[in-house]
Amino acid sequence: MKNNKTIDQLEAELKGLKAKYHIKKISPLAPKDGFPKLPVIKGVRYASTAANIKYSDRDDVMLIECIQGSSIGGVFTRSSTRSASVLDCQKKLKINSSNSPIAILVNSGNSNAFTGSYGEKSVSKICEAISNELKIPTNSIFTSSTGVIGEKLLHEKIIKKIQELKFNLNKNSAESAARAIMTTDTFPKGAGSSFLISGCPVNIAGFAKGSGMISPDMATMLVYIFTDVSIEKNILQNILTKINEKTFNSITVDSDTSTSDSLIIVATGQSDCKKITDEFSAEALKFTDELHAIMSNLSKQVVRDGEGASKFLEILINGAVSDSSAKTVGLAIANSPLIKTALAGEDPNWGRVVMGVGKSGEPADRDKISIWFGNILVAENGWVAPSYNESLGQNYMKNEDLKITVDLGVGNGSSTVWTCDLTHQYVAINADYRS
Amino acid sequence: MKNNKTIDQLEAELKGLKAKYHIKKISPLAPKDGFPKLPVIKGVRYASTAANIKYSDRDDVMLIECIQGSSIGGVFTRSSTRSASVLDCQKKLKINSSNSPIAILVNSGNSNAFTGSYGEKSVSKICEAISNELKIPTNSIFTSSTGVIGEKLLHEKIIKKIQELKFNLNKNSAESAARAIMTTDTFPKGAGSSFLISGCPVNIAGFAKGSGMISPDMATMLVYIFTDVSIEKNILQNILTKINEKTFNSITVDSDTSTSDSLIIVATGQSDCKKITDEFSAEALKFTDELHAIMSNLSKQVVRDGEGASKFLEILINGAVSDSSAKTVGLAIANSPLIKTALAGEDPNWGRVVMGVGKSGEPADRDKISIWFGNILVAENGWVAPSYNESLGQNYMKNEDLKITVDLGVGNGSSTVWTCDLTHQYVAINADYRS
Repeated sequence: MKNNKTIDQLEAELKGLKAKYHIKKISPLAPKDGFPKLPVIKGVRYASTAANIKYSDRDDVMLIECIQGSSIGGVFTRSSTRSASVLDCQKKLKINSSNSPIAILVNSGNSNAFTGSYGEKSVSKICEAISNELKIPTNSIFTSSTGVIGEKLLHEKIIKKIQELKFNLNKNSAESAARAIMTTDTFPKGAGSSFLISGCPVNIAGFAKGSGMISPDMATMLVYIFTDVSIEKNILQNILTKINEKTFNSITVDSDTSTSDSLIIVATGQSDCKKITDEFSAEALKFTDELHAIMSNLSKQVVRDGEGASKFLEILINGAVSDSSAKTVGLAIANSPLIKTALAGEDPNWGRVVMGVGKSGEPADRDKISIWFGNILVAENGWVAPSYNESLGQNYMKNEDLKITVDLGVGNGSSTVWTCDLTHQYVAINADYRS
Repeated sequence: MKNNKTIDQLEAELKGLKAKYHIKKISPLAPKDGFPKLPVIKGVRYASTAANIKYSDRDDVMLIECIQGSSIGGVFTRSSTRSASVLDCQKKLKINSSNSPIAILVNSGNSNAFTGSYGEKSVSKICEAISNELKIPTNSIFTSSTGVIGEKLLHEKIIKKIQELKFNLNKNSAESAARAIMTTDTFPKGAGSSFLISGCPVNIAGFAKGSGMISPDMATMLVYIFTDVSIEKNILQNILTKINEKTFNSITVDSDTSTSDSLIIVATGQSDCKKITDEFSAEALKFTDELHAIMSNLSKQVVRDGEGASKFLEILINGAVSDSSAKTVGLAIANSPLIKTALAGEDPNWGRVVMGVGKSGEPADRDKISIWFGNILVAENGWVAPSYNESLGQNYMKNEDLKITVDLGVGNGSSTVWTCDLTHQYVAINADYRS
């Protein structure tokens, strides 16, 4: 049956529907200033190129070389089906000394996960080729792969490019490297800082990729962080593991844990400062603070690029019986499809937050729970707050960056987690197009 | 910028988009034959009416009376923020004897959850009114409420209708009662059977509601089951709890646990058969089998009415270290947004199934995992099966009812769980419209 609309009206209606349901090119939550200018890290060189693994029109492989004497640390996915690269990195990390340079090679477009013994062969072949070209022992060569699961990685395509990559290694190409490892990401994620430790100047630069299959029961997406700080390997690892728990392990996009998540940090020791040899020295604490800021920044950028995200949500849980109990409650809220869709709909549906607390299985007492949206007290004493009215909540939900605070009132544990909303775009990205 | 499409082309494009994104009236997965004809259960009478609690054009309260001498059992949500009705039912269930009739009152449109002490008062007032009208002690009166969380239940509206409900009580109105408790459900869910126990005819009739906020770490949505079997209360409860674990506790729509979930079963003992007094007698086992079939049927209907569902998925996990480990793996797959959107997109994305196994945290060995889509072997020995090709998977995914089997190869544990897909309609129901 025909209706009587004009072409203009129909086009406007179509445009509206497309705007509502179709994928935007860059996440609306992306940093307004684009990729930051990262400090140069002495002893680190980057290169990237197009190996045509899956994408035909962009760089999809990157190589990083770090100078001899560097300390390395890492955290990885705990998935029982983790990729060949992850298993290889974990093995090498344990035995790596600082007696040789370190190389890191990453490809996007294929995760080399669940590819049987062929996957392990691919990793070996790539590491051997890099070893021959860069004259570095294979035990100091680390790889990551990100993309489709279960498809053979055509490692020859990568191996053919190693000479070119080596030739192009330079200290200024961190952003190109960050772009080469993107998959469904809509923007590259970088963070850096330059600061003083006991009056001595040092630098940190890092970048990350991640957008979907993001859940915190593991290390993180792919993240590479470099610093010229001089620090013992075991201290670097301890600091990293601690910070990771409060940054990358406190974010979730869709509750799904990747088979490839890896974070690698390398400290080249090329600054002129003295070596950090005590985890609790003033110098170590300063470095910890700065690294925490970088990792927090990068982890939030991953959430801001969550597939289909239109809202960024910080969830603070106070008054839990312990910090880990608080985190469980926070993640129950952060992973709830009903809460995430309410965010997308700008619906101040605090009843669903109550549901999230209830489903977490953690100790809570209905009559002691308080809930705030931003600074607005929404619920207290087991019921809606007398001062609250729906239009306050509705106005608040129009913000792009949101915060929900829940005080459980049963202890002193607290935790903060970060997530994004669940939108039509998320379904479009993961259902409408074959991946 | 104008394009050059004709009105016909634009209308066709609009129609396509609307069909793709808009909500269908009744789930495409609903039983083709509609609500079944339930057997009459001697000793059970139903009534429903419109109390105008939230909906203005339909029945939203139902009352059921069961004859004196009945045994009652129940399972309830484990949410720490469960509703006043649930807490009241749990208390009364423990002390209820068969010395008086039993009444069950249920309203839809308001869950009376997180409504502070006012919520408890509402339950008391409703029970007192029923007690006065039906001459039943309040300890034998059970209530459920389902709908919005955190809003005052206007119990006076219900109390005004109790006389009318009592007047209309009759043995044939189970379907009207099932319709009165619907919220976002698109169809009422019923199941019944008539069978012989040691040659003696008995009957079971049950109905359920549930569509969103459906996750198995609890009892279930709202479910009421009646039988004329004569059975001791504690045996009834044991059988119920066991079956519940393999039916309602094995389904998930969106991983979110309701604050109101309740399943109540009443056995009136009005058949002419002898009383079941031994849980492991042939009679008890026959009854268990039949009740299992009814609960399995109803629980799958809840999944088939999952918000926005277009595909029904059975997940069978074999070869786990234990049954409970198998269930954890099954639910990790069933609750994965990436797997659920792949279903919606008819994408045979078995890599996401591998991810689901990996994220579950349960023992698994990559090289021992096998995966089937229906009867198609997709992966084995830690990689894609040599006999598999993508077009086989693509054709299979076009089916409305799907089955994924995973053999972990590390033990003898097994479990089956049921879920549906995650579609644009789910987001539309929960984000586009205020609830």
